Amino acid sequence: MTLDDVLSRIDDDLPQAMERLSAFLRMPSISTDPAYEEACDKAADWLVADLASIGIAAEKRETPGHPMVVGHVGEARDDVPHFLFYGHYDVQPVDPLDLWDHDPFDPQIEERPTGAVIRARGASDDKGQLMTFVEACRAWKSVHGALPCRITFFFEGEEESGSPSLVPFMEANKDELTCDIALICDTGMIAPGVPSIASQLRGMLKDEFTLTGPKLDLHSGHYGGPGLNPLREISKIVTSFHNEDGSVAVEGFYDGVHEVPAELKRQWASCGFDEEAYLGHAGYTKAHGEEGYSTIEQQWARPTLEINGMWGGYTGEGTKTVIPSKAHCKITCRLVGDQDPDALRDALRKHVEDRLPVDCTVEWNQDLEGSKASVMDISRPEFERARGALSDEWDREAVFIGMGGSIPIAGFFKSILGMESMLIGFAAEDDQIHSPNEKYDVQSFHKGIRSWARVLDALTKG
Amino acid sequence: MTLDDVLSRIDDDLPQAMERLSAFLRMPSISTDPAYEEACDKAADWLVADLASIGIAAEKRETPGHPMVVGHVGEARDDVPHFLFYGHYDVQPVDPLDLWDHDPFDPQIEERPTGAVIRARGASDDKGQLMTFVEACRAWKSVHGALPCRITFFFEGEEESGSPSLVPFMEANKDELTCDIALICDTGMIAPGVPSIASQLRGMLKDEFTLTGPKLDLHSGHYGGPGLNPLREISKIVTSFHNEDGSVAVEGFYDGVHEVPAELKRQWASCGFDEEAYLGHAGYTKAHGEEGYSTIEQQWARPTLEINGMWGGYTGEGTKTVIPSKAHCKITCRLVGDQDPDALRDALRKHVEDRLPVDCTVEWNQDLEGSKASVMDISRPEFERARGALSDEWDREAVFIGMGGSIPIAGFFKSILGMESMLIGFAAEDDQIHSPNEKYDVQSFHKGIRSWARVLDALTKG
Repeated sequence: MTLDDVLSRIDDDLPQAMERLSAFLRMPSISTDPAYEEACDKAADWLVADLASIGIAAEKRETPGHPMVVGHVGEARDDVPHFLFYGHYDVQPVDPLDLWDHDPFDPQIEERPTGAVIRARGASDDKGQLMTFVEACRAWKSVHGALPCRITFFFEGEEESGSPSLVPFMEANKDELTCDIALICDTGMIAPGVPSIASQLRGMLKDEFTLTGPKLDLHSGHYGGPGLNPLREISKIVTSFHNEDGSVAVEGFYDGVHEVPAELKRQWASCGFDEEAYLGHAGYTKAHGEEGYSTIEQQWARPTLEINGMWGGYTGEGTKTVIPSKAHCKITCRLVGDQDPDALRDALRKHVEDRLPVDCTVEWNQDLEGSKASVMDISRPEFERARGALSDEWDREAVFIGMGGSIPIAGFFKSILGMESMLIGFAAEDDQIHSPNEKYDVQSFHKGIRSWARVLDALTKG
Repeated sequence: MTLDDVLSRIDDDLPQAMERLSAFLRMPSISTDPAYEEACDKAADWLVADLASIGIAAEKRETPGHPMVVGHVGEARDDVPHFLFYGHYDVQPVDPLDLWDHDPFDPQIEERPTGAVIRARGASDDKGQLMTFVEACRAWKSVHGALPCRITFFFEGEEESGSPSLVPFMEANKDELTCDIALICDTGMIAPGVPSIASQLRGMLKDEFTLTGPKLDLHSGHYGGPGLNPLREISKIVTSFHNEDGSVAVEGFYDGVHEVPAELKRQWASCGFDEEAYLGHAGYTKAHGEEGYSTIEQQWARPTLEINGMWGGYTGEGTKTVIPSKAHCKITCRLVGDQDPDALRDALRKHVEDRLPVDCTVEWNQDLEGSKASVMDISRPEFERARGALSDEWDREAVFIGMGGSIPIAGFFKSILGMESMLIGFAAEDDQIHSPNEKYDVQSFHKGIRSWARVLDALTKG
């Protein structure tokens, strides 16, 4: 039996696979709303049963929140990796319900000029994506009688509500969950038809400060002039964070930032990302930010210091002639490479403190955390093999992409289980995840299943 | 009969004058609270009756709000001015009531090491002050049988609630209210025992703008980097408003600003203003603002551009990784000399518009007004004569002072009735006007009455 037999089986079984996905989608497993607790529980049961139907020993594992599903299959072998596959069975809330064309939990197939789609909450995020891997395993098992390696399945039901049980569960079940590499199917393709492996996710540093000038709010008629105004001081400080060329002026900010290797730059340049459309969506006519870096480089490979909120003084209707006592600023930095969030926090705070004038003090929020960037070691052979397998399936060079945001699970796999993650997903930019009328392209589902079969094959050929 | 007889009469009559003031203070004439409408009306009636008891023909004049009291006395003469005396019979609300040592409308005399005070809401602002002039007229009339010139009395009952009826009433009664000069007793002394005539009040320009960057709030993971952030842009603009030396950088901002004459500078330097205590009250250890100008010069004779409010993005607890679409800024400028608010508004807006980057737009609030500074013509002989009269009474050189804020009534007298105002008041810095336990020094009351008798004498001697 060959890979082609598995792929044929996948093609033949697609109608049944769609039916299974539809059954899964009918469960309103909204994790954030206690009214759907039973639905979440049933979705976990459904997964356990579906895995069992492929011969995978899975069970529902209780947590203080929604249950985890953990399953194992196959024998551990020295010559091939032991994979952990992660996905989540919970979905986002559906409101505003009136913007849906139909019941979000009554999946419908819709024919579009660009191909059929299946519409329902969770179709893309993450039930449809999760099932691509499960269906690939089913086809493999049915053709070969067994999977090609040991695989651990790990599904959570709280991803859309902050994953409160995830870290404790991983810490309590470290040995059971630690494998050679994690496979995650919860990301998208950079452009239609361009298979993508997310290999670098930015980290984040959060900080917040309050400047105090006068010890009470003052009347600007009395103190306007001789009185220091913290709104002016905070503006100066915010302005000082960046240089004229858009780079960050905090000393040491770029320690641990690496230039993008030429090969990755080549892949990014050819990945089909439509910069103009992307910027246009936000109303921008050009890329701002750091001079000399493309939009995609800035988003994936450059750190940022962003002001997310700033406020002080009177913000209501009309005028109040006040010199406020306090001014506030919320900051997040996106981190890349080996930037160290703790060192950066110190550098950022020093930058501010060095610029405080007489009669102005600063207080920092002490409750905000930081996390390093997740940069996968794509020199590991699994990554190039997976890229080859995806290129074969999609008939187009697969690319390593970055992500501007963070995916916490990848960071936890690294920090808690010491495992690299390979993020392969088939979602499209227009899937409307978290929004009304969420959909998943049937092609994403079908070729996603085939992709995983090829990846399993490529990674276990020895 | 001489001025000394009038002054003796004032001294002898002080206990009765205190009783009249107490009766007036017992009326809870809080203008902003509809529950006290009747009390306001009764306070107006009380004034009408009190003026009548001195032979002044006064009447209550209805408005859409609380009534005005207008009275006239004496014959118009060519050789002496016709005065308008202005005060207000309404008072501030009293909450928080539990911070008062006694019922705010049960005036109490309290002996303090520095002299007796009378405590009640309105004791200083403005019933006590207003009565200094009325009592001076009473004594004068009782000694001389008639007042030395024609005087028009004009009392309003809405000063503490925005004076909504004032301008329409003045416009409708322009001829009746137009005199040679207005006397206003609603200000304070620059330092204890230092008689003060406020001769320059700053004007004000209000403006407000909103910057728009992206057309919707963006995720800082996706657009952080290439995305223009309006909070950064507004900080740059706010920073650009001032030069390093604290002066305002808006082109043309200082057009119409004049240097302070040497004689005024001399008076200000010797007026007993305690700069250190004043700054210390706000928590400042030094004067900020414009280099090369004292606190008092900055407050009275220099224009400012102050940020009263600034906001944008997420301002709640914790973190939201947003690049906001909009950022907002509220500004007031204090104006001096001949600065033209309309020209300044144009200059300010041009300053901002010249600094907008690509993909950033600005909208201005079109509902905010401006008013010129009120600078009295102290070269008119009345001013020097009044200064001499005050110096005689207080046994210390009286000074022309400025005020950092505006007193709208002085502007209206100028713009509607074409009249200069002479602002002479006896309030002390620690009178706690608008706050619990408001008081008026009995010395302020007593010497205030004597001061007005001397001023009337000095201004009508011919």
